[in-house]
Amino acid sequence: MQVLRIDLTTRSAAAEPVPPTWEPLGGRGLVARILLDRVPPTADPLGPHNVLIFAPGLLVGHRLSSTDRISIGGKSPLTGGVKESNAGGRTGWAIAHLGYKAVLLEGRAPQGTWWVVHVSAQGVRFDPADDLVGLGTYATAARLRERYGDDARIAVALIGPAGERRLRAAGIANTDQDGVPSRLAARGGLGAVMGSKGVKAIVFDPRGGHEPPLADPAAFKAARKAYIQALLAHPQTKTYETFGTAAMVNMCNAFGGLPTRNFSQGQFEAAERISGEALRQLILARDGEGAPAHACMAGCSIRCSNIVPDPQGRAVVSPLEYETIGLMGSNLGLDDLDVIAQLNYHANDLGLDTIDLGAALGVAADAGLWTFGTATQALALVQQIYDDTALGRLLGSGAALTGRALGVERIPAVKGQAISAYDPRAIKGTGVTYATSPQGADHTAGLTIRAQVDHLDPTVQVPVSRTAQLKMAGYDTLGACIFAGFGYAAAPEVVPALLRSRYGWPVGDDVLVQLGRETIRLERAFNRAAGFTAAHDRLPEWMTREPLPPHEAVFDVSPADLDRVWADLA
Amino acid sequence: MQVLRIDLTTRSAAAEPVPPTWEPLGGRGLVARILLDRVPPTADPLGPHNVLIFAPGLLVGHRLSSTDRISIGGKSPLTGGVKESNAGGRTGWAIAHLGYKAVLLEGRAPQGTWWVVHVSAQGVRFDPADDLVGLGTYATAARLRERYGDDARIAVALIGPAGERRLRAAGIANTDQDGVPSRLAARGGLGAVMGSKGVKAIVFDPRGGHEPPLADPAAFKAARKAYIQALLAHPQTKTYETFGTAAMVNMCNAFGGLPTRNFSQGQFEAAERISGEALRQLILARDGEGAPAHACMAGCSIRCSNIVPDPQGRAVVSPLEYETIGLMGSNLGLDDLDVIAQLNYHANDLGLDTIDLGAALGVAADAGLWTFGTATQALALVQQIYDDTALGRLLGSGAALTGRALGVERIPAVKGQAISAYDPRAIKGTGVTYATSPQGADHTAGLTIRAQVDHLDPTVQVPVSRTAQLKMAGYDTLGACIFAGFGYAAAPEVVPALLRSRYGWPVGDDVLVQLGRETIRLERAFNRAAGFTAAHDRLPEWMTREPLPPHEAVFDVSPADLDRVWADLA
Repeated sequence: MQVLRIDLTTRSAAAEPVPPTWEPLGGRGLVARILLDRVPPTADPLGPHNVLIFAPGLLVGHRLSSTDRISIGGKSPLTGGVKESNAGGRTGWAIAHLGYKAVLLEGRAPQGTWWVVHVSAQGVRFDPADDLVGLGTYATAARLRERYGDDARIAVALIGPAGERRLRAAGIANTDQDGVPSRLAARGGLGAVMGSKGVKAIVFDPRGGHEPPLADPAAFKAARKAYIQALLAHPQTKTYETFGTAAMVNMCNAFGGLPTRNFSQGQFEAAERISGEALRQLILARDGEGAPAHACMAGCSIRCSNIVPDPQGRAVVSPLEYETIGLMGSNLGLDDLDVIAQLNYHANDLGLDTIDLGAALGVAADAGLWTFGTATQALALVQQIYDDTALGRLLGSGAALTGRALGVERIPAVKGQAISAYDPRAIKGTGVTYATSPQGADHTAGLTIRAQVDHLDPTVQVPVSRTAQLKMAGYDTLGACIFAGFGYAAAPEVVPALLRSRYGWPVGDDVLVQLGRETIRLERAFNRAAGFTAAHDRLPEWMTREPLPPHEAVFDVSPADLDRVWADLA
Repeated sequence: MQVLRIDLTTRSAAAEPVPPTWEPLGGRGLVARILLDRVPPTADPLGPHNVLIFAPGLLVGHRLSSTDRISIGGKSPLTGGVKESNAGGRTGWAIAHLGYKAVLLEGRAPQGTWWVVHVSAQGVRFDPADDLVGLGTYATAARLRERYGDDARIAVALIGPAGERRLRAAGIANTDQDGVPSRLAARGGLGAVMGSKGVKAIVFDPRGGHEPPLADPAAFKAARKAYIQALLAHPQTKTYETFGTAAMVNMCNAFGGLPTRNFSQGQFEAAERISGEALRQLILARDGEGAPAHACMAGCSIRCSNIVPDPQGRAVVSPLEYETIGLMGSNLGLDDLDVIAQLNYHANDLGLDTIDLGAALGVAADAGLWTFGTATQALALVQQIYDDTALGRLLGSGAALTGRALGVERIPAVKGQAISAYDPRAIKGTGVTYATSPQGADHTAGLTIRAQVDHLDPTVQVPVSRTAQLKMAGYDTLGACIFAGFGYAAAPEVVPALLRSRYGWPVGDDVLVQLGRETIRLERAFNRAAGFTAAHDRLPEWMTREPLPPHEAVFDVSPADLDRVWADLA
């Protein structure tokens, strides 16, 4: 495989050999390695020295269920530290089939010029994107399909108006198996990095490419089979196919950790109305384009995604996920799934992270800009982002900036990134993850809600979070989604077997955790050079003081315990 | 002397003995010591654990010319680090005469309740301030004069609407010798800290108090005399009396370092129109309340302040200073002193730092929100702050936040605090100060424009900045203003003599620099614990890339050199 370097300053591209130290990594781990090697840690994330990295995970390219994810990374304009955000869709598979271990966007185009970068087996082309400027992600993707074809293998990564304006909560949308740009690498402002480089979209056309080579095809096939059997046998696989991630609403509400009205409560009185069960009923009750289960990438056996229709049966958004329901539903006092779906659609269309935007809207309500639970007001605020008002730009900059400007104390963010839909006072292990992940607050960095511990006991959370973080960093390096982990965890011999048969590497049985460990070590090294210290591995102070109903719990994992999490990585 | 602790949570106060380690410090040095001893470094600056500190300098209370300054400090909501901002006016003298080495505001009042804290020889009283909420600083001061008397010794420290709303560029206004709240401890958001505690104003009534005791009155008198002679003999004293700090306009413009249109140019074509000479002519040409020279505190021999009248002779603002002319004049493309005076008045009335607000307006123009040089638009944006719109709150949060939200690259700020009116690409020693001062960008932390070096040579600036920073930290610890330094520097035996005769301490001849060194050591220790590293001791990256006309210079002092500045303080 090769590394494709695309220089926007000169509009040129070159394929280079993979540096030896990059070989054993992929996805999230490779992002960290590349940042350390190529980006000055004090670089302006939106300046020419940042590098936007597209790195498929180590196992991407083979249609292994839920394991074709693309990791996108760079120095985060939201946190100022390392950032990897991964997504489903076609992008990872397409890049792997083009033979690239990583694609790097370097430099930046002259300010005000916009480009579509077209990557195919024939090379790299830079096409003017002036006609796409200002378009939402859906319209942009439609135009690109017309222009570049709608072959099911072509993948597009693109930004909306938020990324163009370099708003710091902007993500990068990736087309799903239907060509819909619904798979956002949403977190950490990577869409702003893409916008800063003058790139509206990248089209990856892998036709003429090949599946990555296998060192031992028979062994790979056997391992794949064992994995799929384990995955299909896992009860959660069925749960996620039935209810999607929205299954979490009732579970988190029962734990008293469902963010409600800007994290002022842990239970929402209308949780039932926005639950996975309610969402499934809504979809099934309406004829038309809706679907309670839907795969974001070809070959996925879980199909946790969905398509939410409006009352007339027209598709509004796909997927409506738990995090969005939490942050844009209960967190805003909104109990109408149709409204939440609309907010989700607009966030996707603008190319914004629903978590950070939802948290920003919650903070704005706390600041008195609107009243929790008022759908028209919430939608009007999102309209301000379309209208590019100062308030719109502020909201699109995420919860931390919004809260700081509006004088709000209750800002749910760590390292500048909004907390996702598990209140860390009720699920304290996840609070440890939020505090100590090099990524900033992020449930996918190490969710602990399924751990068999007392989630309110502050003394037992460190090992729980650490284990979850190491595994997730490992999965993110493989290109596996969080739910693929059900299968991999049930058949722990599979990951080493897949890596051995794919690459011929003599990896140990604990390779998943070793990859995770190396990834987090590299990430912390980058963050340290970028100016992060133990002082940043903390939850917001108000969460240590303000009790969360109904448990009236505060976050009381001690700072010393937080500093223990990665003490051995120094 | 004693330490007065005022607890807003319980609305109680207690005078305590001065801890021994606090004794040898005052002003800025004492602020750093107290922060290290009393404020958790990771505390939320606007939460109950921050402490707002009022600490007169070591030589305050004796009407030594230009040496009765008050240092106000706390953990900065703008930078997240140590913050000391000092001001003239009456506050320092009053606190010293009440016998307090420091006054600490701790805890915070229940949200939404507002108080005037009244401190006198009879003790501390908490009076409701509900009728003052929302009032500007001028109206508030007038009401307080009515209520508490207008004796020339009574000092008031107060906040405007900006501080009430906890906007992060809010300062604390102190009344001058005329009772006008014109002396802002403007920088770093300390007004927001005061607002977070629910304190609208503190009235210091020193009647019944005493001048601090002198260990050797005769020796003190002799040292005072030597100081005044040296000060009056210094040519700059006359310059500042004649032109005020606005004398700097032509000088800085000549050096190519006058911030112009959001730091995109170093010379302003209309610099003459906003120069100290033009300002003096404007004031002299108008009958009425104007004055080209005015003392901010009783006993000052320099009188660098002024009173700027409108065309009808009515006082608009006092003083109009160079930094304001630079940031709200040339930096905004505005060349009309009357407009600049109005902007200054509104900033003072809102209780905002003119430097950070001016820089924020410059950034907003870069973002396309208005057109440089259009007075009506600039004034309309300031009106948004009065109107408490989201954009108003953003602007009142300072340049860094404004620029981040608006997607602007050219943000002139270090550690979140706006750069003052010396472009560091043209005056590189001051750039070293901006980068490495624990306070964030701040010319008063170590201005180098008068140093006899090539200001464009990157290799010679480190010792120049270091010397200036150490001396200024020393002066700030004494309570001496930057211009008092002309006298102290011309008669270097005076500072040790004053300290020996005031306190009976056997200080060495280099006590000024020793105090500065200890101050910066303490400040860096606090910042380190708060999460600052060498990565934060940098200018914004764009200043290292974007050449500044007319010299086409970039900031090219090497990171290694920047890290040398305080290497011996570890």
